[in-house]
Amino acid sequence: MAKVAIMGYGTVGSGVYEIIRRNSEKLRSNTYGEPVELKYILDIRDFDDHPEKELFTKEFDEILNDEEVTVVAEVMGGLHPAYEFTKSLLQKGKNVTTSNKELVATYGSELLAIARENNVNYMFEASVGGGIPIIHPMHQCLVANNITRIAGILNGTTNYILYQMIENGKSFETALADAQANGFAEKNPAADVEGFDACRKIAILASLASGKEINYNNIETKGITEITLDDVVCAGEGNGVIKLIGYADMLENGKVYATVAPMFISKGSPLAAVNDVFNAIMVTGDCVDDVMFYGKGAGKLATASAVVADILDCVRHRNSNKNIIWTKTEEPVEAGRDDVSFAYFVRSNNSVSEVNAAVKVDRFITEDDKSAFITDKMTESEAEERLSKLDIITSLKVLG
Amino acid sequence: MAKVAIMGYGTVGSGVYEIIRRNSEKLRSNTYGEPVELKYILDIRDFDDHPEKELFTKEFDEILNDEEVTVVAEVMGGLHPAYEFTKSLLQKGKNVTTSNKELVATYGSELLAIARENNVNYMFEASVGGGIPIIHPMHQCLVANNITRIAGILNGTTNYILYQMIENGKSFETALADAQANGFAEKNPAADVEGFDACRKIAILASLASGKEINYNNIETKGITEITLDDVVCAGEGNGVIKLIGYADMLENGKVYATVAPMFISKGSPLAAVNDVFNAIMVTGDCVDDVMFYGKGAGKLATASAVVADILDCVRHRNSNKNIIWTKTEEPVEAGRDDVSFAYFVRSNNSVSEVNAAVKVDRFITEDDKSAFITDKMTESEAEERLSKLDIITSLKVLG
Repeated sequence: MAKVAIMGYGTVGSGVYEIIRRNSEKLRSNTYGEPVELKYILDIRDFDDHPEKELFTKEFDEILNDEEVTVVAEVMGGLHPAYEFTKSLLQKGKNVTTSNKELVATYGSELLAIARENNVNYMFEASVGGGIPIIHPMHQCLVANNITRIAGILNGTTNYILYQMIENGKSFETALADAQANGFAEKNPAADVEGFDACRKIAILASLASGKEINYNNIETKGITEITLDDVVCAGEGNGVIKLIGYADMLENGKVYATVAPMFISKGSPLAAVNDVFNAIMVTGDCVDDVMFYGKGAGKLATASAVVADILDCVRHRNSNKNIIWTKTEEPVEAGRDDVSFAYFVRSNNSVSEVNAAVKVDRFITEDDKSAFITDKMTESEAEERLSKLDIITSLKVLG
Repeated sequence: MAKVAIMGYGTVGSGVYEIIRRNSEKLRSNTYGEPVELKYILDIRDFDDHPEKELFTKEFDEILNDEEVTVVAEVMGGLHPAYEFTKSLLQKGKNVTTSNKELVATYGSELLAIARENNVNYMFEASVGGGIPIIHPMHQCLVANNITRIAGILNGTTNYILYQMIENGKSFETALADAQANGFAEKNPAADVEGFDACRKIAILASLASGKEINYNNIETKGITEITLDDVVCAGEGNGVIKLIGYADMLENGKVYATVAPMFISKGSPLAAVNDVFNAIMVTGDCVDDVMFYGKGAGKLATASAVVADILDCVRHRNSNKNIIWTKTEEPVEAGRDDVSFAYFVRSNNSVSEVNAAVKVDRFITEDDKSAFITDKMTESEAEERLSKLDIITSLKVLG
């Protein structure tokens, strides 16, 4: 009998509860027949009207000190006390699953090491892409590959906004207001539209792929607040779309180049067809080439179903660490911006001849006194230097 | 030390060998540090010039009777002797991984049961979608979901042919010749273009999702040989594309409706953007809604990397069956064609008024004496009866 606790009865937590109650027989079949029994729900609030109010507790120590509890789902969010709780639970030899991307991105290397020392698991499938299977497929199914690149649409809110701009010709401001009206965006949308959310997620994926901690504070992050309808329309004329991309390039020298930025994606790419609030993560391996994982990146039951899958995996591997790990490295692992090259999508107030005099162009999208074009590949420094000679309206990296 | 044997040194087998040799350190890190040692390669042919020719044997019994061998990769293909070999290995308590879709689709229920009786695993990630993670994500990551539907582009050859027709306006015959010239299609392309390959794959996925054996002989299968350029162009005018879809609907009454057929997909669907030789499988769960897995469905190293991932999983779970199973049911599990409803994409030699007199139309694509249209949803019998009143050129199910 595997006894489980849920910490945090918010959106995801109540979803975890609902799934455990609804699919108990199915879950049992995936734990070598061992039933999964919910023993505690930790929340500081009162739930006196809850049909199983006896499960609720406000005392973390009750869970920590209950020898019967072997798996705990941390779905409370935030750094504190989630970090302290998770650390104590792992040190006590309890498995922890989480949807808390902030915590995984910030303390992942430490918590994963503690889990390994104590021969338990710290699992976080739900921290990226909601219910989309991505962590386990990357770690387990693609294990025979060296993962060389990750490019993901990791934030549904910004994808919805850009999609509204692309499909319905709305301005950024109108599309954002829409998203807020539809509950896809917070009143304060900074975490989404400034790219902070996507930054945490690409930090997790890049750390998992490289085995080295990629500190999200070192990831250059640009949101979509400066993307105009003109940019989107011009990209369309250039047979592309603009998407907010979390990008990580695992270089052969062992360093990792990671960034979050709106990028130009040509319509041929499957990422270009990821619309509305959907997420998609394109992973490139040296054996499989490109594989993509697509779905809703958020939502109560979707995210909760990933947490529950991790709970079952913890039950199955209760006494064996799955070796999901990344470590802090001595010297910085982050590659410099000039260790990689990109082509650039550029809108300018210059003529074709002025443009050609300044930079090598792959193709022009518009050829007038406001030339728009795609450049050849170059380093960021070279791009800055060459484009500084022009009157630039917009310049975005092209996802090659 | 986990000792491994490869049965069959063809395309996939040599890929498995290459990956094991190339990534041995990485593989070790995924088996709790246990090295994976290749001990035998079984093949009836001589490989005297092979750098490790001492690994080769023609004697299956050498592998069967070697107590040290715990995992065997069956990548020989075909039903016999692959079936007999796999059965004996499982009965001897050895784990078997395979890329052999024919064998899994035909004898899966029996072999999975034998694996469970002997507390070992029979794994087949590589049998569907090549290197695309799909079997493990469905069984493990989506375990908290009841999977209600699967719709997949499961065959790269036919997708390449249809893509050439859609993008480059080629006829089926020209596109097929192309595919053969590029090595994407066999001299005898029947297995691909008649849908037999996709049929085996959807049978495996539907069996995995439902837990009940879906006999591929009972799956109505239609290929793409009758799809004309006119059909493709008309679908485009109707804002859709034609793709060969392996489809399975897990009905609430416990029955499963499965079919393989060219279907009309509106361009909004991510499946419509799956081009060239790529595969994609859309899985619908009651918690996650739609998730899609995309990538190259074939290729030496891609397929081999899935086999190697399964080898490692077998090493990690050497003495615990992962409960991947489906069973033969007493009464037939296959739903009748009238247990489900589809809209239809129809090209006719009839006028709008004749069409409207015969069938309920959702929208017309062309409105002349050769009307093309999308119908409302109806059962197959109703569709047959209503459309029989018209002079039909083409009629395809619409993927809703």
